Amino acid sequence: MQGLASVLAGMPLAALLIGPDARIASANDAACDMMGQGIVGRHFLTALRQPDVLEAIEATLRDHARRKTGYQISEAGRDSSFEVHVAYVETDSTRGVLVSFEDMTEREQAAQMRRDFVANVSHELRTPLTALMGFIETLQGPARRDEKAIDRFLGIMQTEAARMERLVRDLLSLSRVEGEERVRPREAVDLSEVIGSVVYMLRPLARESGTELIFEGGEGMQAPGNADQLQQVFTNLIENAIKYGGAENRITITLDRHPKDATLRMPAVVARVRDTGPGIDPLHIPRLTERFYRVDTHRSREMGGTGLGLAIVKHIVNRHRGRLRISSTPGEGSEFTVILPRWIA
Amino acid sequence: MQGLASVLAGMPLAALLIGPDARIASANDAACDMMGQGIVGRHFLTALRQPDVLEAIEATLRDHARRKTGYQISEAGRDSSFEVHVAYVETDSTRGVLVSFEDMTEREQAAQMRRDFVANVSHELRTPLTALMGFIETLQGPARRDEKAIDRFLGIMQTEAARMERLVRDLLSLSRVEGEERVRPREAVDLSEVIGSVVYMLRPLARESGTELIFEGGEGMQAPGNADQLQQVFTNLIENAIKYGGAENRITITLDRHPKDATLRMPAVVARVRDTGPGIDPLHIPRLTERFYRVDTHRSREMGGTGLGLAIVKHIVNRHRGRLRISSTPGEGSEFTVILPRWIA
Repeated sequence: MQGLASVLAGMPLAALLIGPDARIASANDAACDMMGQGIVGRHFLTALRQPDVLEAIEATLRDHARRKTGYQISEAGRDSSFEVHVAYVETDSTRGVLVSFEDMTEREQAAQMRRDFVANVSHELRTPLTALMGFIETLQGPARRDEKAIDRFLGIMQTEAARMERLVRDLLSLSRVEGEERVRPREAVDLSEVIGSVVYMLRPLARESGTELIFEGGEGMQAPGNADQLQQVFTNLIENAIKYGGAENRITITLDRHPKDATLRMPAVVARVRDTGPGIDPLHIPRLTERFYRVDTHRSREMGGTGLGLAIVKHIVNRHRGRLRISSTPGEGSEFTVILPRWIA
Repeated sequence: MQGLASVLAGMPLAALLIGPDARIASANDAACDMMGQGIVGRHFLTALRQPDVLEAIEATLRDHARRKTGYQISEAGRDSSFEVHVAYVETDSTRGVLVSFEDMTEREQAAQMRRDFVANVSHELRTPLTALMGFIETLQGPARRDEKAIDRFLGIMQTEAARMERLVRDLLSLSRVEGEERVRPREAVDLSEVIGSVVYMLRPLARESGTELIFEGGEGMQAPGNADQLQQVFTNLIENAIKYGGAENRITITLDRHPKDATLRMPAVVARVRDTGPGIDPLHIPRLTERFYRVDTHRSREMGGTGLGLAIVKHIVNRHRGRLRISSTPGEGSEFTVILPRWIA
């Protein structure tokens, strides 16, 4: 019997064997993690409490035919779902029913995520579209000859169309980055130059909102990367810091080298974008990089945000085998840290 | 040894055992389907030809440590990819290396499909958006005071905005139907009534394009269903038949009862939408229900199609546990058949 335990241990899924005496004769680690450590030796009825699984096992103990059924667990607020395969087995030294659990959670979540994503995109598009259609109709009818109204409406229409265009552009960026996520970029990119050019481009926006923008750069700050994508990372982070940093905001961008970074466990370049804005409630921080997650939907829309900026940042950083860290003290400011492997010539 | 074969047979994935003599001691059906029927007894090097897998097996035969690697096969133009788990096992009667293949194909395809979908949606939106933005700019500038131009442009803008709105609406329909696909609808829906009302609504459109629309209906044509969704099915099918049926088109819609349908193996209601249009090249038929697949992209866009109509039809029919069949003879016409389980009171 103990021999079979080694086979179950070698299987890449939770599995257990129920003997002809209806007791659990063997269970691998994954099965014990799911069902509890003490299950070996117990009657299967007391270990696996879901009627569908129990029925399938009873039937297979009786007629030796294979069966498939489902098993759901909910632990600490997380739902997992399994396809359960029930088969009669007979070896030289033992016989019984092999029950194996194929984890379907990820697949089901992927389907759910896609539906949520489609619903979100549609919703984001619907609002500006409805506005556009309303204005077109108004211009065709009541406002036909009112030049002032025409000018004003066209201005709003442009804003709404531009919002949709940004959304479409961000959707495409995101899907492109996701598609490449497994392909590690291999050019040497100088982060000091990349951030320098982003800062140069965003200076007018910063000036407009009375934001001070400080960046000094440095030598030897190269990472294996894709320059366009890294530019997008820092554009998104610094633009956010300007937009949401409020008045009298001071943004400091620093670049450091770590000979051996604690997170990446290798030489790293660490870029920090720190602002003195109102900060972010810690509640929101873990979800900030989710698509369409927003701390303040109204404010984000008003600022022209698509709800995809930080999701794009996260995926680009992942592709670069780096890490994104977000920390904030409400009332004092926020800090976005990008840790990237350092370029080794 | 033959005992272990029964355990491998009970596993829900392709698996094989390599003995200490480096020969394949046992392999289950799924593994034989993948690697060839004659692999048992052969040296593993000649059966599994991919370097990564061979290396992992050799190393595990040597040091008994677990390993994970990848395995790809490409057969008849279809790529499959597997995560391979390699583990040393030792039972009363045998010992060796257990190699099991977790199929990742579906998961990878799902990710790819999502990216394609996003790219398609973005592309579909971009064209009308660019047009809209162009017209807004023209109206703000050169055409400012040209009333005729304003009227014409507003007309086009309305068409483009309406196209985007249809796309957004179809995206939402599709994601809603997909979300409900496992929940079987249970109301009794009278198909004769549903199709009757669709025909009534579409008669003006048919008249405009010189299409004859024939439907007689019948008694006892009930199916367990969702009336709104079935209405959408027949609206999409009949609207397509009108739009793509050309001039002098005759559309005949029939409803039949099958006491025991050959496909569903139960009493069924069979609805057929037949046109005398130009027909569809058999090449396209298997792909017609894919999202954004179009026989003639330009023509479809011109007709206001979103490329999602038949995908929605397919998912609704799936949800109803029915079947959609498409057949066509180029030059003679096309036939779309919806087979639904019949309502049993």
